[in-house]
Amino acid sequence: MTNALRTTQVMDAIRRMVAERALLAGDRVPSIRSFAARMNVSPSTVVEAYDRLIAEGVIRSKPGSGFYVAGRTALKDLRAPSADLDRSVDPLWVSRQSLDAAPDVLKPGCGWMPPDWMPQASIRRALRQISHGGDALLADYGSSHGGPALRQILARQSAEEGLPVDPDMVLLTGSGSQTIDLICRLLLRPGDTVLVDDPCYFNFQALLRVLGVRIVPVPFTRDGPDLAAFAEALETHRPRLYLTNSALHNPTGATISAQTAHRLLLLAAERELMIVEDDTFAALEPDLSPRLAILDGLQRVIRIGSFSKTLSAAARCGYVMARPDLIEGLTDLQVATNFGGPSPVAAEIVRITLADGSYRKHIAATRTRLARARRDAAARLQPLGIEPWIMPRGGFYLWCHLPKGRSAQDLAKAALERKIVLAPGNVFSVAGTADGFIRLNASQMAPAVYDALAEALERSA
Amino acid sequence: MTNALRTTQVMDAIRRMVAERALLAGDRVPSIRSFAARMNVSPSTVVEAYDRLIAEGVIRSKPGSGFYVAGRTALKDLRAPSADLDRSVDPLWVSRQSLDAAPDVLKPGCGWMPPDWMPQASIRRALRQISHGGDALLADYGSSHGGPALRQILARQSAEEGLPVDPDMVLLTGSGSQTIDLICRLLLRPGDTVLVDDPCYFNFQALLRVLGVRIVPVPFTRDGPDLAAFAEALETHRPRLYLTNSALHNPTGATISAQTAHRLLLLAAERELMIVEDDTFAALEPDLSPRLAILDGLQRVIRIGSFSKTLSAAARCGYVMARPDLIEGLTDLQVATNFGGPSPVAAEIVRITLADGSYRKHIAATRTRLARARRDAAARLQPLGIEPWIMPRGGFYLWCHLPKGRSAQDLAKAALERKIVLAPGNVFSVAGTADGFIRLNASQMAPAVYDALAEALERSA
Repeated sequence: MTNALRTTQVMDAIRRMVAERALLAGDRVPSIRSFAARMNVSPSTVVEAYDRLIAEGVIRSKPGSGFYVAGRTALKDLRAPSADLDRSVDPLWVSRQSLDAAPDVLKPGCGWMPPDWMPQASIRRALRQISHGGDALLADYGSSHGGPALRQILARQSAEEGLPVDPDMVLLTGSGSQTIDLICRLLLRPGDTVLVDDPCYFNFQALLRVLGVRIVPVPFTRDGPDLAAFAEALETHRPRLYLTNSALHNPTGATISAQTAHRLLLLAAERELMIVEDDTFAALEPDLSPRLAILDGLQRVIRIGSFSKTLSAAARCGYVMARPDLIEGLTDLQVATNFGGPSPVAAEIVRITLADGSYRKHIAATRTRLARARRDAAARLQPLGIEPWIMPRGGFYLWCHLPKGRSAQDLAKAALERKIVLAPGNVFSVAGTADGFIRLNASQMAPAVYDALAEALERSA
Repeated sequence: MTNALRTTQVMDAIRRMVAERALLAGDRVPSIRSFAARMNVSPSTVVEAYDRLIAEGVIRSKPGSGFYVAGRTALKDLRAPSADLDRSVDPLWVSRQSLDAAPDVLKPGCGWMPPDWMPQASIRRALRQISHGGDALLADYGSSHGGPALRQILARQSAEEGLPVDPDMVLLTGSGSQTIDLICRLLLRPGDTVLVDDPCYFNFQALLRVLGVRIVPVPFTRDGPDLAAFAEALETHRPRLYLTNSALHNPTGATISAQTAHRLLLLAAERELMIVEDDTFAALEPDLSPRLAILDGLQRVIRIGSFSKTLSAAARCGYVMARPDLIEGLTDLQVATNFGGPSPVAAEIVRITLADGSYRKHIAATRTRLARARRDAAARLQPLGIEPWIMPRGGFYLWCHLPKGRSAQDLAKAALERKIVLAPGNVFSVAGTADGFIRLNASQMAPAVYDALAEALERSA
């Protein structure tokens, strides 16, 4: 029997006595020596077991006096946050439902890939490598901009794409969402106006609401924002910022055309509009599409990204590329509000997988896998009368029309009763124009999803 | 020769050809087969080396065509952020100087312990354990409140201290600073007033400035805030929030007395003041001191903490304990602004070291080590005329008087020229009353610090 097993047996024995009320709160626990003899283990095993029980709060030690059953053990069992059917379908609805879903819940509405689509072997290798790293890596905050080696890799990749940046123009952050929050807090004041796409990522809306800014939606077409509406919004609302994904737009999967990108930048320059271009999904493109940041050279565009969707959401790490004056302001702001950027351990997981080439291989394989998954999903959705608005050139999102006259919100509520989390169209639409749509995730379309969708369609009719 | 070494040799050979301009940007790199023969290695070694060079941005592949030297390799070398002597000594000054200090800089002014004071073996063991964890742990976001197992441990520990909380009343966050930011964004509007101690942790000030609130300082005594001044501030300014460390107060190391805590809560109740009690350093106390959250039972006190100072700042993880309605609001806010809490990998490092008892052992040993370090530092500072305001009962801070008439700001600037980062008193003082003080860190007092302090005292005279 291993030491670990013996330790567990000792712990279980004490726990049982507490559970069966053989030992009550405040009672003295058997001494190490006597319990070792009783359990037929070494005293050091009992020491180890008692240490762990202290850490768990089951017993406590009084120096010089021994061990006692802890005072309050009647804490409620942990409840899994419940799926709240009554909560209104607001921009946080899908996030909370997806993050807190029980293991048996299907999540075709969620915004990430299943864990077994992620490069597990690379992440595990990176963790082992970090466990042999230097003391400072394992215990220190790291520099205010984030580790130089990862910033250098990101700067080189950006240069390869046609946007040369100095590594000092790259700031590592805790996540993509946090990056947008920092930028908005630097550039906006409550009451300022921000343009977003209609539809757009629901968390843009949640975040902008927190900031107390006015949100003005611009219809999004298959080529990017509708430029006539965009120009009119600039004229009417004098926005300070436009927040968008140019490549593999969330939720539509569309990508801006070169002409739209060029014209949009001309309009922005006339009105001194700043643009945040969120490249979160861009790695999943088959090849590089037009990018506002690249055309503009980071004059009025701020480029952001993250590895949560393409490598691991458990290693939270985002980044921003921007003019040096903005980076300086963002760095101060991140120190004030978070005392620095990502967990250095998390950032090192990203650095290692980028540096050893395994990230690149994973992305190449995932692109192929996603292309097949998108095709399969579209084929299996067709008999249900659910049809993609476009077939995206990459990524996992399928922005789908429901059968005529059907409400996505009603469908989402019916689906949740069947333990399926959907993303109904209007959580993406500031203008409330998308109740005829749902966003599906091609990587999350288990076979049971189609049956449940069919049933929910029937029930919500 | 190992495979890794052969791969490195191939990479070096290509890098050298690029550096020596034997290969120019856009040139074709030797084919895998030919270069394997030339280097006398296997083709798979060259494949591996080229993959890594692609990841580094040195070469790129054109599918079906071969490998080429990448376009722009003339990026500047990474510059370490420079110690900015001219930057004004504002609340962010010490943070930026400490975070971005070069390895040869001494940091008696910084707010954390050196990496070799941290439980390296436990952190490394936790990382290895995580590398064998489940796929979801390594790739998913985790739940919106943070992992239940860690929340349960924290709830039990709190119960042991006399504050029973349900695990659902615990929210994991990205850091202590982020926690305060979230609470302030939930409870405050620009123009609201917040009370802080004078002196207080400089980042409280930096953060509150970002939020656009009014900051009112209350003198801090050896027993906690000056209650007469506190009552007057409540009357005059009608603050919404009071932000403090009751135990091992930063920067003074003082701890609130039971009587002060009780009276303060009575005053707070009269005026409906909310209180944020930051327990960041509390684990380093020899025993439990009076705590506002425990007396109050989380009615108007919000308890926060983090493991950055006591376990690892590389595994960023904070927490907040509060009433369920506040936790619900904070959870939504954290999803909107960060799409969830800490990196699950970082939180798991914390959970493992707490669960296996190694955190508790490390803390016990560190308390003893710090007690000696505080005594030693005080003894060695005496000949310099630098004297602790009090001898704290725990932690690493020594809040020290300078010799009469000396300016801490001048001293800090002189010290920085000698590659020593100090924390001058007025960065902690909203009222600007502390230029005769510096905060020293007993764990960072290398022998060279004393000589440099003596020299800087002389130069800044």
